[in-house]
Amino acid sequence: MAATMKDLARETGLGLATISSYFNGGNVREKNKEKIETAIKKLNFEINEVARGLKTNHTKLIGVVIPELDMIFCAQIITEVEDILRNYGYATIVCDCRSDEKREEEALDFHFHRRVDGLIIMPTSTNGKGLKRFLEHNKPVVVIDRKIDGVDCDCVLVDNEKAVKDGIARLIEEKHEKIGLIAGPSDIYTSKERIKGYHKALKERGLQVDKSLISCGDFTISGGAKAMARLLDTRPDMTAVFVSNYEMTLGAMIELNERGVKIPQELSFIGYDNKEFAYASNPQLSIVAQPTKEMGKAVAQLILKRLQGDGNGKRKIWKLETEFIEGKSI
Amino acid sequence: MAATMKDLARETGLGLATISSYFNGGNVREKNKEKIETAIKKLNFEINEVARGLKTNHTKLIGVVIPELDMIFCAQIITEVEDILRNYGYATIVCDCRSDEKREEEALDFHFHRRVDGLIIMPTSTNGKGLKRFLEHNKPVVVIDRKIDGVDCDCVLVDNEKAVKDGIARLIEEKHEKIGLIAGPSDIYTSKERIKGYHKALKERGLQVDKSLISCGDFTISGGAKAMARLLDTRPDMTAVFVSNYEMTLGAMIELNERGVKIPQELSFIGYDNKEFAYASNPQLSIVAQPTKEMGKAVAQLILKRLQGDGNGKRKIWKLETEFIEGKSI
Repeated sequence: MAATMKDLARETGLGLATISSYFNGGNVREKNKEKIETAIKKLNFEINEVARGLKTNHTKLIGVVIPELDMIFCAQIITEVEDILRNYGYATIVCDCRSDEKREEEALDFHFHRRVDGLIIMPTSTNGKGLKRFLEHNKPVVVIDRKIDGVDCDCVLVDNEKAVKDGIARLIEEKHEKIGLIAGPSDIYTSKERIKGYHKALKERGLQVDKSLISCGDFTISGGAKAMARLLDTRPDMTAVFVSNYEMTLGAMIELNERGVKIPQELSFIGYDNKEFAYASNPQLSIVAQPTKEMGKAVAQLILKRLQGDGNGKRKIWKLETEFIEGKSI
Repeated sequence: MAATMKDLARETGLGLATISSYFNGGNVREKNKEKIETAIKKLNFEINEVARGLKTNHTKLIGVVIPELDMIFCAQIITEVEDILRNYGYATIVCDCRSDEKREEEALDFHFHRRVDGLIIMPTSTNGKGLKRFLEHNKPVVVIDRKIDGVDCDCVLVDNEKAVKDGIARLIEEKHEKIGLIAGPSDIYTSKERIKGYHKALKERGLQVDKSLISCGDFTISGGAKAMARLLDTRPDMTAVFVSNYEMTLGAMIELNERGVKIPQELSFIGYDNKEFAYASNPQLSIVAQPTKEMGKAVAQLILKRLQGDGNGKRKIWKLETEFIEGKSI
């Protein structure tokens, strides 16, 4: 017969409440923890998380939906979130929806049927329809990176507008006037914010915005290469370019390498994310780096707070600052 | 009162077996699928995966343990696995153990208590102790990339020995004799295989192996930079270097950039993984690329086969070939 929590209580001499607290991630004194762990081994106690889930109506599962797991920005945030949540006994189920709205909807269904206790999402769709179901069932939702209008939930964002504004200002300082922007899809929140930053930087310095210098990619490597090619073909007079995510930065660099365009002699360049890639590039790239570790921490904190019962507190929007790292590409 | 599977059977006119098959990922005719889906909507049917798990003793959860989620090699495999398994109704819980044996052990405990139906692991520990418990409970285990002696389970590996052997042979063809190798930790399977390949390539061409040309990193960016620095300091006569994973390739490039070493004029270079980084580098790097997509597919196939009841079939070891991509760095 399998050992029960009562057996553990008897063996350790501790109360059932303490034992239960131990398994539910509550505060248990180090000394008592050790006692419980010894008893677990001795009695060969195995927790049945499935039965526990049915009893408590908590699965201790957190659903995560992201556009691409192999985008370094996503991977870095998720690995941080996963690590923290696991320490609190939560398992994260990550679904990669490949930036596809239909797949995202399926992933949300999947998580809902799994009865996850909460949801973390970097949304691809902009309507937020799929999120409302979770909120209606009192499951906390934390949105990463891309704010969705009309959905009342916690958000962890980056100040994208300022990031691009500062980068463009840096280029203007160096007397650049014809500055290209490789932006993301025009309907995505972060992308819109970045384009706003571009406009503001130019306007504040009395420069005209010329739309033919803005080329929208799709946040992928090949999209970045194509957007770079378009700018080089149509605006040979461009003297600097700002690329607004990591994968497109890679793509733009591939295109520039293939055409033999010299940085910074022929074109000044600012990239995005992934410090290591910037350092490993020759010349070292100037980049805007997003605080992925801090974002992961903030996401985990927000959802844990809600899971621990702060269901009615006002929704929080955290906006984190990027860092500008000067290389030798300007 | 919530709708049940019986209600769905009544509504669609189909047998309970068909309905059950639909939810368990079995074969159901397209026409019947549509009927069931219409009924699900009409009756507002919600699957309770938790209750189902208790009844069937299957959680439809697959545990995944990897050393680093933000290693591109891991992320690319996992995203492929996750996608395929989700199509079969399985959710994957990914735990990142940060290349730490203690954390890996905790992750295995975590998955075991969650009662996952199967386990996928790229092991950090080399003793395989934690895996035996899963096998004893008839939970299939698939090991990725790093074979573990004494554990009888399916493996998906890469022919690391041949990958390095071919790369080194390519450098010898170009008359290099003093060839450095930046290897991984000397106790990891892939690392050992790569060092073997290095030895073989030199021996087959009548060259001596000089151990001072082998520098062990730890598969991280900073480890790669340090290993590169060590080689440059102690072996200034080295004319070519082979770096044996992506993160160390990045690190080695950072070190070379900082010292202003010119590739290929002063040092020929072969890197590992991540085609996009190789293309985006200047000059374009020659690299060994691992077939991550194919690996992910193989892993998913193997575990699905076991989950579908092929528990007694002979354990399979799949060994996939790498691809050599010629750049301009030799």
